[in-house]
Amino acid sequence: MAQGSTTSQARLERLSQALGSGTFADVRRMLNGLPAADVAHLLESSPPKFRHILWQMVEQEDEGDVINELGDELRLHFLSDMNAAEVAQITEHLQDDDLVDILQQLPDRVTREVLDSMDHRDRARLEQVMTYPDDTAGGLMSTDTITIRPPLTFDVVLRYLRRHAEIPPMTDNLIVVNRNDQFIGLLPLNTLLVSDPSSTVRERMITDIPPIPADMPDDEVARLFERNDWVSAPVVDQQGRLLGRITIDDVVDVIREDADHSLTSMAGLAEDLDTFAPVFYTASRRALWLGINLLTAFLAASVINLFQDTIEKVVALAVLMPIVASMGGIAGTQTLTVMVRGMALGHVGKHNESWLINRELAVGLLNGILWAAVVAVAASLWFDDWNIGLIIAAAMIISLLAAALTGATLPLLLKRMKIDPALAGGVVLTVTDVVGFLSFLGLATWFYV
Amino acid sequence: MAQGSTTSQARLERLSQALGSGTFADVRRMLNGLPAADVAHLLESSPPKFRHILWQMVEQEDEGDVINELGDELRLHFLSDMNAAEVAQITEHLQDDDLVDILQQLPDRVTREVLDSMDHRDRARLEQVMTYPDDTAGGLMSTDTITIRPPLTFDVVLRYLRRHAEIPPMTDNLIVVNRNDQFIGLLPLNTLLVSDPSSTVRERMITDIPPIPADMPDDEVARLFERNDWVSAPVVDQQGRLLGRITIDDVVDVIREDADHSLTSMAGLAEDLDTFAPVFYTASRRALWLGINLLTAFLAASVINLFQDTIEKVVALAVLMPIVASMGGIAGTQTLTVMVRGMALGHVGKHNESWLINRELAVGLLNGILWAAVVAVAASLWFDDWNIGLIIAAAMIISLLAAALTGATLPLLLKRMKIDPALAGGVVLTVTDVVGFLSFLGLATWFYV
Repeated sequence: MAQGSTTSQARLERLSQALGSGTFADVRRMLNGLPAADVAHLLESSPPKFRHILWQMVEQEDEGDVINELGDELRLHFLSDMNAAEVAQITEHLQDDDLVDILQQLPDRVTREVLDSMDHRDRARLEQVMTYPDDTAGGLMSTDTITIRPPLTFDVVLRYLRRHAEIPPMTDNLIVVNRNDQFIGLLPLNTLLVSDPSSTVRERMITDIPPIPADMPDDEVARLFERNDWVSAPVVDQQGRLLGRITIDDVVDVIREDADHSLTSMAGLAEDLDTFAPVFYTASRRALWLGINLLTAFLAASVINLFQDTIEKVVALAVLMPIVASMGGIAGTQTLTVMVRGMALGHVGKHNESWLINRELAVGLLNGILWAAVVAVAASLWFDDWNIGLIIAAAMIISLLAAALTGATLPLLLKRMKIDPALAGGVVLTVTDVVGFLSFLGLATWFYV
Repeated sequence: MAQGSTTSQARLERLSQALGSGTFADVRRMLNGLPAADVAHLLESSPPKFRHILWQMVEQEDEGDVINELGDELRLHFLSDMNAAEVAQITEHLQDDDLVDILQQLPDRVTREVLDSMDHRDRARLEQVMTYPDDTAGGLMSTDTITIRPPLTFDVVLRYLRRHAEIPPMTDNLIVVNRNDQFIGLLPLNTLLVSDPSSTVRERMITDIPPIPADMPDDEVARLFERNDWVSAPVVDQQGRLLGRITIDDVVDVIREDADHSLTSMAGLAEDLDTFAPVFYTASRRALWLGINLLTAFLAASVINLFQDTIEKVVALAVLMPIVASMGGIAGTQTLTVMVRGMALGHVGKHNESWLINRELAVGLLNGILWAAVVAVAASLWFDDWNIGLIIAAAMIISLLAAALTGATLPLLLKRMKIDPALAGGVVLTVTDVVGFLSFLGLATWFYV
């Protein structure tokens, strides 16, 4: 990772230089002919000032494709400057699933206007796709499928395909349906190509791959694609009728977003965030998480406040107390990361939760004992007082056990309450702070006062 | 995310119950017929005790496929129990790129033995693939390609394909080469299917997609696949000769691993870690990061130690000082996460680094001022002393600026030194602790003493 892309990086540097020096004709020339995804990447890699210059240079006919490739935040930013007619015009040629993603980001009024501007058949099809939430199989699917019937011979299928000007991208299977449009099986194009033209669809179709129900969550769809190495898969309704198909390019986006989500949520950041968002926007998005942390920090401070007398007597306690809290925080974050990641990968379920919690407690105890011993010796020598060494050792073991328990159980609890487990980060740090200060200063008070 | 897979989760529960109750015949029956990827997922989701029972129930002919689907840690665990002959036997039918991944995890001696047991042609091909590092295009590719020459008509190509029993999975293009085996272009199977059989390859092949050089880093390959929605892509050597091709299933693994890497590294955990690793192994893997943190915590403590006299005079300082450090830590982690993520996505380069650093400083200043004001009022009221409010406010602004500066510049610096930027987490927290304590206690000393 993070090795950077030499070719696209070099292109970025050149474009940025041209932008900086104001030679806009060069920029326009470089921009033309780039694939939409590259233009989107350029926009995402540019500070706001250059973004608007770049965006104005995008040919209007390419705007829809570029918008489609942008992350959510930046996409919304450009869309909010457009009226319904403009949105309708630039998104005309997009696939259903992509268009629906865009429409779902717009205010209801604009979405309505865009839909109203379409012809009846397009609108009906889109409205059907829009009934499925964004994060389900139905929200991921497009409706451009090629279907065939079982009695056909391959010769007929081949002639039928030749009547198409082109086959939809990422078509690796033709979908076999009955006369009620219900899914029966798949005919891989590869089978069609290597088989005798007199074979029939019925003889060679695959029927042991179950189709995807439209209400399956998107992370489950992604796991099925990953495990079975699919390029595309059919989507059906509850009656088994074919609704559309999902292709691997959209699944890759789901995988990328899910992984991104764990990383950003643990730092209290929005997922799919814009790296180059402007100052005020960024500051306001981050302020809330800092504010929550401030409340919890005051909670920790009020614990210390209980022990003012003890600290006045033994100032060394004030020196050492952050060590206990810090070690608890690191251990808690490690446990939490393992849990959040394991849950996102689908490794963690009811049947293995208690094993995991016990494992984390055992790991916390072992590392607690190990580093408590080190800290005890270091603190005793530093302050020439073996009592303080014993006190900090005991506090550290308690703290690491509390870190393990909170880090392991809290995300499970949040998941059961249908709250994002990755948000547990702030609470885990608070618990480790509070337990760290309470155990260390409490033991010291019991001993010294 | 984290909604869990109902079907596979239900299967896991049933299997786990059967394992727990010792009805191994049921387990074996359930296990048989599952795809290798599902068996691998089951193994990864099981505590160690059940893993070994499950692994013994896997049919020997399936072991290679299951090993291939496992994460690095668990794969190595099972492989280390096998001798070279066993490895050679179970991996016989795997694709080159998968086999090479496995061989590269084994001790050199075992790898040598496995290679020696192969026939000459297989060995030569594998040794070629093994010359490319694991994290380059060459390390990702497999050598099973179907190549054609430009003068052929589609009729001839179709007949040529029918001579194959099957076409390699994920073949969406035939690769067009000249008589020196150099890459010329691609012929999509879709084009072949919709075109007149009398067309020639030369007329309809695509020549504007550049092939992938074998030494391209794997994250750059992943970005190309994502941006261009490829299913497969040809790999060439420096002379443009075709070496093999990369398929989307292996690219998805790269994307998953890269995203996983940012998440786990920031918590000081190994990437591709085993969720259910046993206690001692887990404890020892995490101990190092805790030990490093302990050293830095002592550094922060020694800063506090400088101000013992001040704390003795004003104990309220000991109560409030964790607030400054904690806010700095949160702000620093937010900045660091944005940077590490932006770098992994290829958004950050020389031309926009300074903009980002300035943006982070401005955000730090704004949020610093905002929360400093809140803290100032709260602290002043709490301790009935407006001076302490002003002191903590100033310290908080300094602390958030330091957090922004370290969080933004350190990952860039590490990247230039070819060190993983995600490892900056520990250092950022140390800097914010040290700066927080130093500014708060330093200002207080200057004022009160």
